Amino acid sequence: MNFSSKLLEQAVEEFGRLPGIGKKTALRLVLHLLQQNEQEVYRFTETINTLKSNVKYCRKCFNITDEQECEICTSPKREKDIICVVEDTRDVMAIENTNQYTGTYHVLGGLISPLDGVGPSDLRIEELIERIQGSGVSEVILALSATMEGDTTIFYIYKRLREFNLKISTIARGISFGGELEYVDEVTLGKSILTRVPYERNIG
Amino acid sequence: MNFSSKLLEQAVEEFGRLPGIGKKTALRLVLHLLQQNEQEVYRFTETINTLKSNVKYCRKCFNITDEQECEICTSPKREKDIICVVEDTRDVMAIENTNQYTGTYHVLGGLISPLDGVGPSDLRIEELIERIQGSGVSEVILALSATMEGDTTIFYIYKRLREFNLKISTIARGISFGGELEYVDEVTLGKSILTRVPYERNIG
Repeated sequence: MNFSSKLLEQAVEEFGRLPGIGKKTALRLVLHLLQQNEQEVYRFTETINTLKSNVKYCRKCFNITDEQECEICTSPKREKDIICVVEDTRDVMAIENTNQYTGTYHVLGGLISPLDGVGPSDLRIEELIERIQGSGVSEVILALSATMEGDTTIFYIYKRLREFNLKISTIARGISFGGELEYVDEVTLGKSILTRVPYERNIG
Repeated sequence: MNFSSKLLEQAVEEFGRLPGIGKKTALRLVLHLLQQNEQEVYRFTETINTLKSNVKYCRKCFNITDEQECEICTSPKREKDIICVVEDTRDVMAIENTNQYTGTYHVLGGLISPLDGVGPSDLRIEELIERIQGSGVSEVILALSATMEGDTTIFYIYKRLREFNLKISTIARGISFGGELEYVDEVTLGKSILTRVPYERNIG
């Protein structure tokens, strides 16, 4: 693309770095922002800066929150002895939307992916183990995407948790293979939490 | 969607205001930015702020530029007596990519759309007329989208320009190159039969 302005080109480049945003879409978004008044554009950028500067992660489950601990971890209604391990905040929101789960969460912040240079130490796996040690946790549900990275992460966490006296389960493979967790419909996702099976049965 | 953080919700809302970005995509983009380091996020927002604060429009054709006049308007190679009227910068880029046009442009900054509250005075139509008055412009090409808004705008500009001694044309409408006849919509196919051109001109 030949841009008539260097500033325009730079803004399009920045937007084009976002996942799923190509050059043409980036240009459309930038031109849209240019048509807004200054106040609206600054509100857009300020909101992002504020989030980045002030974002907090729950000290128990590492979900994004505005407090020290998230609403789910502090709620007396949630079963504290069940932990559902997920990749990120989107998965917490997706599972909460099913209204099928009353336990707590643990947000890993990603999946093990050697190709992308993400190893176990880049995720909050040690924090999960610390959280389980000496606590009354009785069950860990591994609710990760049914992808290569998800399976790898499930296997790694399973190996690390085997020493504890825990029920370890994965959500049922009612979700389609290769499917991303966030895009699964609520009924399927809810069912797959209800019909979770012991990990041994899944690999057996 | 139930957000675990107000800051997160606000950022998602801001992204969701962009055209073609739904709530889920907005959340994906915000979480992606959150995973970047502060420097990268601030570069993203700063680039947008800088563009908004410093953007210039060519004083002749109103294309986005970093100078007082754009490269096309100042180029001695471009024919100054032909003006191609387009909706926005994207159309200039699209036509430039064809390498078929050697005249200049006039960027309207939108199309007449009463439903969206956009009238002729919101566009740079008066500037186009001023530009033509007393100048040596011999031809105006109206290269606007083949939509209701595009047709309305073409009709309005045509009426305003009729008094000048000008050749006024619109870009050809018909079936696209590589298009299979059976998949072309009826309106386009009907029009392209009515506005058929001598074979010699098509290969010329």
